[in-house]
Amino acid sequence: MGILDEFVPIFLPKSHAVIGASNSPAKFGGMYFRSQIAFGYQGELIPINRDETEVNGKKAYAKVTDYPGQIDFASIFVPARAVPEVLEDCLKKGIPAVQIITAGFRELNEEGKRLEEQVKSISARGIRVIGPNCFGVYSPKGGVTVMPGGDLPKEPGPVAFLSQSGGYAARIPRRAEGLGIRFSKVCSYGNASDINECDLLEYLYEDPDTQIITSYLEGVSNGPRFLEILKKVCQKKPVIIWKGGLTESGSHAVKSHTASLSGSSQVWEAIFKQTGAVSIHSIDELLDTVSAFLHLPPVKNNNVCVIGGGGGIGVAAADACERASVNLPVFSKETQQKLMLVAPAQGASVRNPIDIGSPFPQPKMLEGAMDIALSEINIDAVILDELEMTPVVRDGKSNPANDARFEPNKQIPIQMKKKYNKAVIMVLPVEGNGADFINSEIARRGVVNSYQQQGLPVFLSLERAVIAFSHFAEYWKFRMKTA
Amino acid sequence: MGILDEFVPIFLPKSHAVIGASNSPAKFGGMYFRSQIAFGYQGELIPINRDETEVNGKKAYAKVTDYPGQIDFASIFVPARAVPEVLEDCLKKGIPAVQIITAGFRELNEEGKRLEEQVKSISARGIRVIGPNCFGVYSPKGGVTVMPGGDLPKEPGPVAFLSQSGGYAARIPRRAEGLGIRFSKVCSYGNASDINECDLLEYLYEDPDTQIITSYLEGVSNGPRFLEILKKVCQKKPVIIWKGGLTESGSHAVKSHTASLSGSSQVWEAIFKQTGAVSIHSIDELLDTVSAFLHLPPVKNNNVCVIGGGGGIGVAAADACERASVNLPVFSKETQQKLMLVAPAQGASVRNPIDIGSPFPQPKMLEGAMDIALSEINIDAVILDELEMTPVVRDGKSNPANDARFEPNKQIPIQMKKKYNKAVIMVLPVEGNGADFINSEIARRGVVNSYQQQGLPVFLSLERAVIAFSHFAEYWKFRMKTA
Repeated sequence: MGILDEFVPIFLPKSHAVIGASNSPAKFGGMYFRSQIAFGYQGELIPINRDETEVNGKKAYAKVTDYPGQIDFASIFVPARAVPEVLEDCLKKGIPAVQIITAGFRELNEEGKRLEEQVKSISARGIRVIGPNCFGVYSPKGGVTVMPGGDLPKEPGPVAFLSQSGGYAARIPRRAEGLGIRFSKVCSYGNASDINECDLLEYLYEDPDTQIITSYLEGVSNGPRFLEILKKVCQKKPVIIWKGGLTESGSHAVKSHTASLSGSSQVWEAIFKQTGAVSIHSIDELLDTVSAFLHLPPVKNNNVCVIGGGGGIGVAAADACERASVNLPVFSKETQQKLMLVAPAQGASVRNPIDIGSPFPQPKMLEGAMDIALSEINIDAVILDELEMTPVVRDGKSNPANDARFEPNKQIPIQMKKKYNKAVIMVLPVEGNGADFINSEIARRGVVNSYQQQGLPVFLSLERAVIAFSHFAEYWKFRMKTA
Repeated sequence: MGILDEFVPIFLPKSHAVIGASNSPAKFGGMYFRSQIAFGYQGELIPINRDETEVNGKKAYAKVTDYPGQIDFASIFVPARAVPEVLEDCLKKGIPAVQIITAGFRELNEEGKRLEEQVKSISARGIRVIGPNCFGVYSPKGGVTVMPGGDLPKEPGPVAFLSQSGGYAARIPRRAEGLGIRFSKVCSYGNASDINECDLLEYLYEDPDTQIITSYLEGVSNGPRFLEILKKVCQKKPVIIWKGGLTESGSHAVKSHTASLSGSSQVWEAIFKQTGAVSIHSIDELLDTVSAFLHLPPVKNNNVCVIGGGGGIGVAAADACERASVNLPVFSKETQQKLMLVAPAQGASVRNPIDIGSPFPQPKMLEGAMDIALSEINIDAVILDELEMTPVVRDGKSNPANDARFEPNKQIPIQMKKKYNKAVIMVLPVEGNGADFINSEIARRGVVNSYQQQGLPVFLSLERAVIAFSHFAEYWKFRMKTA
């Protein structure tokens, strides 16, 4: 049996037992059970409870072995001390895989460590285990969601997320939703008593539904195996890793969370260098980087042209590019002369960054500048830096006549991207965070959505855009060099 | 005449001539004139135009010398070559100060350099000049606004902003508005032919309406004088400096923008070290840092306690704190035992960061944990990291019953801040950026406003919060050490 088949019960179960499902509103097993219903699970959902005969209108069974049909997958919510017995039942029933959501194992104390050893030895006799101490699986295609995830998006997408943190397994898909990022498989695997990051990477390497792999890791169980698999995977799909606990203070926090050995920052630097995996350090950086990989065509280099309105913004852009190790090639004299013909006569810079004179440029200027920049062989990407693509609306005073003024400029980046099939990147900041700017934000989000649908990633600041682009370009440089 | 009196015509003019005001919708002078009307200027606004006899219903004069009354301040929009003659008129009329918005001076070419020398020599005969090549002044108390600033906030606040970039002089007050940040005086001073950053710092040192000074600088005209003034000012008011052009690429961009000598990064590092001025690198970092100074009581150290819901978020918080040089002291065994009594029994960490078990904690747990942390002598600030203070609303499905569940937790940070008068810092990220999350964002902004009104700064991520707090704590450490 190949790894794809082996993981079918986990990510695409036809029947799913929830052990510890309950009608009680406060119990996690009950909350989880209702989350699956809310999420719209299409297979057979089977409540298992020793004391309740019916949960949410569905007949409940005391044990999985009491259920007459086949069970593909089980989620375990009983207290830690009861887990080994329940897991034995699952093995006996022939359930191929389970997730143990319950915490209180090796991360807690000696007793927990002993319980986890029991879980391991039962698992070794023929049942795959995710967890314990995790939030489990979110798989839109399979209709399965993590515990507090009944309202997560139902549409699948090409991004996978492996997480040693349960919280992030729910938080990241939610935060990603509005950025147009959807997930193929998310797996919070906690203490990794059986299935670990290596197994999941092997699976995602093969998984045709996954194009981009992201992860939050605190430690790995087998360094050499991890390195070998990661090398292989990065040659096929980008792997973006948030390694928690790289600082001294962070590595102490890891001990009380998943009890992983977090590894030194030097070791991890070497891992990133040898594999081409992308190292990031926050939710925002993770999602920004995914946005770049999701929307941009592969690049050979990290040569960027920035177009902005105003001299100060050009200076800031140049600083930000250099800090992110993104290259801003100076245009040749010929190109500068061509740009002078389209840029405003006075004061504008055409060296790169291009100062287009105003954050609300004439459509002809914008089109001309983009056309010249994108036709340069040594330009991999054009970034439009805080140009005004939507009106700034305060106190709800939007008016259609004003909105219409923005239409011509709005379409140009999309047309130029189509013409050159090069990376076109938008920076559209939140203009005002206040309550009376909400109509500006509505307008901005509408424009963001339309750009994303056309394959143009949108970032909240130039600094964030160039960091994401830098990760993207470094990955492609590494992959092309080592392919 | 003291410096405060000398700057009255600039920031609080009773009469203001706009030279180049016009009925033409495309001309900058006309746009500026209408911006001042829209902004609600209460003094005498006087259009000056050689060809138009009336602008926006107001009688226009060919020259300032034709106007019968006194003129406090003039804004000059005529082409660069006509500026010296117009400035002579202003001197003749006895106008104490002008701003020259027109570009095309030393930043452009030799001819511009010559024109700027003429401006300087006229100014030296008795008229103060802001600019040329600038956006001028925004002074809510004086009713004056920068060119594209008719809709900027009319309420003044305690923050000043000095800018060598015109664009940022308009952009930053707008971006700040929703963060509860208001300005005393903003001055885009461009090429600084007469009034420069040193003069403005001297003025703001005295200005009773300014408590926090921010700036975007590309270069300084007189290094030793700047250093001396900056040292003095930092002992009275924090000075937050965005130095553009610190990288090689950025310093090239500076040349074509304001033609300043941008100075090496080593020189600037030394300036920051010797003065205690705060160095920041982006709009977001500038506004985050202002938020910290605006809301937090002075601190002796940078010892922080982070309270979050979930183990992964604790690891990430520890990493972020260490990267921002913020200290997370480990609680004593006694304190940890006290915390264990309020924290959830299993799996939670009480070492610091405190893992309160869930991003939506029980009010008693939140109150207990904050109470214990804030009563520790060596804790300067408590950060609530992504706790859910508002419901996440999708598709407009807000309901009052659900909203009410959040009320008890919402009040606790405010009560705790009052009880201890210590820094309490909120991290409330945008939960979803998508169009169908707009009701979540409305709820979030409402809560952000209410915290800010109570002196609790709110940040979009922990990383941003700890960087801002680090700047804040470093400033106070320096000031207390050198006072």
